[in-house]
Amino acid sequence: MRIGIDIMGGDYAPEAIVLGSSLALKELPDDTTLVLIGDQEQIHSLCRKHTLPVESFEIIHASQQIDMGESPIKAFSQKADSSIVVGFKLLKTGRIDSFASAGNTGAMLVGAMQVIKSVPGIIRPAIAASIPRMAEAPPQLLLDVGLNPDCRPDVLYQYAILGKIYARDIFGIAEPRIGLLNIGSEEEKGNLLTKSTFQAMKGTTDFVFCGNIEGNDLFGDKVDIIVCDGFIGNVMLKEAEAFYSLIRKRKIDDPFFEKFNFVHYGGTPILGVNAPVIIAHGISNDVAIKNLILHSIDVVKADITGKIKEAFR
Amino acid sequence: MRIGIDIMGGDYAPEAIVLGSSLALKELPDDTTLVLIGDQEQIHSLCRKHTLPVESFEIIHASQQIDMGESPIKAFSQKADSSIVVGFKLLKTGRIDSFASAGNTGAMLVGAMQVIKSVPGIIRPAIAASIPRMAEAPPQLLLDVGLNPDCRPDVLYQYAILGKIYARDIFGIAEPRIGLLNIGSEEEKGNLLTKSTFQAMKGTTDFVFCGNIEGNDLFGDKVDIIVCDGFIGNVMLKEAEAFYSLIRKRKIDDPFFEKFNFVHYGGTPILGVNAPVIIAHGISNDVAIKNLILHSIDVVKADITGKIKEAFR
Repeated sequence: MRIGIDIMGGDYAPEAIVLGSSLALKELPDDTTLVLIGDQEQIHSLCRKHTLPVESFEIIHASQQIDMGESPIKAFSQKADSSIVVGFKLLKTGRIDSFASAGNTGAMLVGAMQVIKSVPGIIRPAIAASIPRMAEAPPQLLLDVGLNPDCRPDVLYQYAILGKIYARDIFGIAEPRIGLLNIGSEEEKGNLLTKSTFQAMKGTTDFVFCGNIEGNDLFGDKVDIIVCDGFIGNVMLKEAEAFYSLIRKRKIDDPFFEKFNFVHYGGTPILGVNAPVIIAHGISNDVAIKNLILHSIDVVKADITGKIKEAFR
Repeated sequence: MRIGIDIMGGDYAPEAIVLGSSLALKELPDDTTLVLIGDQEQIHSLCRKHTLPVESFEIIHASQQIDMGESPIKAFSQKADSSIVVGFKLLKTGRIDSFASAGNTGAMLVGAMQVIKSVPGIIRPAIAASIPRMAEAPPQLLLDVGLNPDCRPDVLYQYAILGKIYARDIFGIAEPRIGLLNIGSEEEKGNLLTKSTFQAMKGTTDFVFCGNIEGNDLFGDKVDIIVCDGFIGNVMLKEAEAFYSLIRKRKIDDPFFEKFNFVHYGGTPILGVNAPVIIAHGISNDVAIKNLILHSIDVVKADITGKIKEAFR
């Protein structure tokens, strides 16, 4: 399998990305090639500087890069030889099996939606985030965390199915329990969106629906997947980041809270597009990039995209 | 001033409420009477048991109580002699200056909306929560945290004014900085609601508008007040509760995180109704009830209700 990574994207690019790719080399399965996309001059020079085995990578040159602050749509259309645009072309034509970047998230979303496109039958793809929990259980999955700030009930219903496939095949939860994020446990509680969604999910056989859950069920064992619109999911995820930052500021050293460090999660996949696209945090360091690459491999191996296509056929 | 408290409401009522009222006695200003509303037999018996000065209270007997699990609207209309209904009658007729309860929140909301009613000009009252922050600054104010799960832009605009009055006169922040909760800092980011609200708030002279803020600005110094719809505010508040519970479970002993213990906050006022109504957490113990009573006094003293009426005249 061929795992594509954007060398030019991220606050510490290209150095942290090249270093992270080299860390990943040591844990790569035999049949896997790492495809580095970006300025070949810089890649070679970094490999020399750190005495990394440049011949172990496949390098695809891209002469431009989309910066973090650029307007995604404009940059995507104007910088045809940028690492992100080149990455999407390779993914679209099957020359790589997944594409990951810690660069301009907006541009990654543009590429996912305009080049790779939604799986037929999917109203809106979603971004899922892994949330740590106390128990030795796998993480909780929260989706959507920012792709769709305004959702309809049928969109939330599809998120449950997308989340189920991911939690089952990446986290290994055979029958993931799904909760609808709400402000009360009773059926009639909530806003217009959640009240209608509850009615759509009630009695479904497509997934294990556990009813309404609340903000304090995040990090908990009541459900494995929390479904919500992208506005609230984004706010919840950022609140968890704020909390981790308080823990750091108070110099609390606790292995559980270290799980909140995004470095341990290899980015978040865009679920519901026709090929694996994985986006990482802009401030990713080399370890985060290594995990991003290993996570890309897991997503390709588990054939998450194929299973989603199958489910919505 | 006469501070009314529901003796029958809360998981540890009536004992914790009577004990908390007695704790408050020691910190009461001279001109203040505590009015205990509930079963007088039980109040007398608890005062005997704990040798509390029953003569220091004014007791108003109510023969019924609304339980935590009861349907609020039904209970409110059927239990005319319950402590909550009696409390609202006293507040309405001016025989008490504020009414507080740790009991059935729904019934408290029904009383606030149906008996006390919205201040003329206010589209929707709101519930505000105090959020701890690292700096030695006063808490951040988050509103609405659950009264209105579906909001319009003009409702959010009014929340900013309600929050400004409260943060100024209770927290002592002369010119509170107000942020609109969103999923990006740029003007065009967000959902339909926040995009329209941004346009309504932009350039206002009614308050200091600092633009969009994000989930990770909670607990921070960027703004003093965070305005959002009641759905998301409720989820954020409960997520903060979930953090505190993780901190406790990990046995982390840190004075900052102790600020997350709701016991230190004397309940949350319903802003925008014609008299001070303050609701407290169901699991309030005696210390929480003491703080609830002291907070009621602050709200009456600062004449929050009068200032809100003035602002919307």
